[in-house]
Amino acid sequence: MSYKAMTKEELLNERAKAAAKYDELKSKGLKLDMSRGKPNVEQLDISMGMIGALSGHDLVGEEGVDCRNYGVLDGIIEAKRLLSAMIECPVDNIIIYGNSSLNVMYDTISRSMTHGVMGSTPWAKLDKVKFLCPVPGYDRHFAITEYFGIEMINVPMTSDGPDMDMVEELVSSDSAIKGIWCVPKYSNPSGITYSDETVRRFANLKPAAEDFRIYWDNAYCIHHLYEDKQDHILEILEECAKAGNPDMVFKFCSTSKVTFPGSGIAAISASKANLKFIRNQMKVQTIGHDKLNQLRHVKFFGDFNGMLEHMKKHAAIIRPKFEAVLDSLESELGGLDIARWTKPNGGYFISLDTMDGCAKRVVAMCKEAGVVMTAAGATFPYGKDPHDSNIRIAPTYPSTEELKQACEILVTCIKIASIDKLLENM
Amino acid sequence: MSYKAMTKEELLNERAKAAAKYDELKSKGLKLDMSRGKPNVEQLDISMGMIGALSGHDLVGEEGVDCRNYGVLDGIIEAKRLLSAMIECPVDNIIIYGNSSLNVMYDTISRSMTHGVMGSTPWAKLDKVKFLCPVPGYDRHFAITEYFGIEMINVPMTSDGPDMDMVEELVSSDSAIKGIWCVPKYSNPSGITYSDETVRRFANLKPAAEDFRIYWDNAYCIHHLYEDKQDHILEILEECAKAGNPDMVFKFCSTSKVTFPGSGIAAISASKANLKFIRNQMKVQTIGHDKLNQLRHVKFFGDFNGMLEHMKKHAAIIRPKFEAVLDSLESELGGLDIARWTKPNGGYFISLDTMDGCAKRVVAMCKEAGVVMTAAGATFPYGKDPHDSNIRIAPTYPSTEELKQACEILVTCIKIASIDKLLENM
Repeated sequence: MSYKAMTKEELLNERAKAAAKYDELKSKGLKLDMSRGKPNVEQLDISMGMIGALSGHDLVGEEGVDCRNYGVLDGIIEAKRLLSAMIECPVDNIIIYGNSSLNVMYDTISRSMTHGVMGSTPWAKLDKVKFLCPVPGYDRHFAITEYFGIEMINVPMTSDGPDMDMVEELVSSDSAIKGIWCVPKYSNPSGITYSDETVRRFANLKPAAEDFRIYWDNAYCIHHLYEDKQDHILEILEECAKAGNPDMVFKFCSTSKVTFPGSGIAAISASKANLKFIRNQMKVQTIGHDKLNQLRHVKFFGDFNGMLEHMKKHAAIIRPKFEAVLDSLESELGGLDIARWTKPNGGYFISLDTMDGCAKRVVAMCKEAGVVMTAAGATFPYGKDPHDSNIRIAPTYPSTEELKQACEILVTCIKIASIDKLLENM
Repeated sequence: MSYKAMTKEELLNERAKAAAKYDELKSKGLKLDMSRGKPNVEQLDISMGMIGALSGHDLVGEEGVDCRNYGVLDGIIEAKRLLSAMIECPVDNIIIYGNSSLNVMYDTISRSMTHGVMGSTPWAKLDKVKFLCPVPGYDRHFAITEYFGIEMINVPMTSDGPDMDMVEELVSSDSAIKGIWCVPKYSNPSGITYSDETVRRFANLKPAAEDFRIYWDNAYCIHHLYEDKQDHILEILEECAKAGNPDMVFKFCSTSKVTFPGSGIAAISASKANLKFIRNQMKVQTIGHDKLNQLRHVKFFGDFNGMLEHMKKHAAIIRPKFEAVLDSLESELGGLDIARWTKPNGGYFISLDTMDGCAKRVVAMCKEAGVVMTAAGATFPYGKDPHDSNIRIAPTYPSTEELKQACEILVTCIKIASIDKLLENM
């Protein structure tokens, strides 16, 4: 029965039960963490073949480069082939970087601050630079734009992606808007995938700023949870080209959640004109990235099919964790009308919305009972969730048993906070 | 006999002999490269133990961190210990980065452009930023400052380091001067090491700019050529602290020329106040660098003594190459009074000075005869050697036999260019 349909007495009765439950759970002194999208040990173990992947191999790449020495600014061809299959672009439209796509995104913004985008005015010389931020979104994206003093504008997410009416209106009318952060597939945190119409509307934007770019962080492009339920997304680079906007997008990806986080390889994909401008910076910035680690990935996977097979192993490990969380939410909160949550087909997160004004309290109560959640507000620019309702759940790292315990605490906290909110308004 | 003491007839006679030699050498159609400071294959082979260094090991660091997963922003303690021994600083005064110290230097300048240095005005907001550049110096340093539009001022090198009278005068009088590029030990390209007095004068600078820093690229700190002739340098961080300037220096190092170039690990060392400011950026820029590669280095070397033993193997391989070049220069150019060159005890280069106005021609003639040298001028800001005299010789990559052939061509070209220059002025 919906809490919203209950009388005060019924609510007080529910609250007493929940409070008793909370005290009982709290007394267990648990220490659980559902805060970060971090692979678990079992997932790391399936990549152990990486450790010896280069042993006994010739370390000369197929284009004759000794991968042990200096040289090759933008990646060995084998690595380009592997990651361009992953990110869905021609091998000529990719640059391989070091261990972190976050670092590549940071670098992309930093370069724009000092050198503009393909010859535009450096953003540091402008009075105002703004970014659109679909919310809820990825806290580390927002941290980059905040660090560079870029004003962030919230754009609500729908089940098809960002509110494109709003995006179109803002991008076409304000030349200070230089970009939009997107996690287009199995979005962080909502898990939704942009619809074909959304991607086409992105590709057909008419930005007021010549140096406007879509920052397309395809972090979870092959991170399916199911073999039979997989989201698909239109390839944005090609759609932009078709729409006459070939230079309007930067795509990012990495193998951080494919092999070892922190020891993967990352890439940017964009038009050749964009990549040419980027290479002009890169040749000043570095002699080249770690080619042995590029080759290590290639030897470990063989080819993109090998990578896809590998992703099935990840899915088999984390699928039960997602399901444990979803089962718990459904069995404890289903029908109470106090929370909504997403049921993603991939990615690393479940996004949960409490009633307005409850998220911070829920997260604080969870913490008191030994469960660390992502800070409430973290999924919004400046850490400010205007509705104080969004909670990001990261199910991958804890064991399934731990997750069940953590969810028990989470749902109990949600019940208590929701009842108190309802009582306030009675 | 000195060319400068010769009559016109004698010079013409010498020229005819040299020209005949040049034609003979050119006709061999050689293809040799003495242009870049790049390890040779034999050097790479001594690090092959790196490839399997992690096999069979527990990948959890001594502080309990699973090096396969996210976490540890500024380096695992084992790597800090190893590189702080290398760069000579306490483990609390170091941050471990990714594969390239050049990238760390670029990043340091880039951050200063957008965020200043420890809270100073971002350089991008200033009308003018200047750097002092001891010359001849490292072309990639100059490329970074040029890329960011920083005006570069040449400071002549002496056998004790940069001309410190000039450095002191400029740094104390001009607040637009924000830094100086230094390769203090086995300098690139001269091979000289800064004297104790030079280091102390650096530490006691009284900069007009609060955000002035010494960019101390200790690229060759352990790159000795001899066991019995090793340069030593005062530790600048400590000297700066003693002088009341604890925050005035950034030190850089990497294992690029210790293990595998491009697959090494790099570090910055500075005061805790500087590192705190840098970490504030880093936490936005990345989740962390490649900890497995950090651990790989630690397992391969064991400890710093292992690294020093390893450097002896490098020395044994490249020492004969340096000696082949020096022998050739001495036997062919000694006493002619047309060129001077350095005889370094370590590092990767020999610096040669021709008579004024000859370097470009010599490098062009070498190229015509099949020998690629570093472009004349490259060792100066903007690629402009005001005397057109400096040539950087990089002896490490070619075989000793190739080096001998390349030097034969080089000395012949120097003879011809010098004679023509002398004849011009007769």
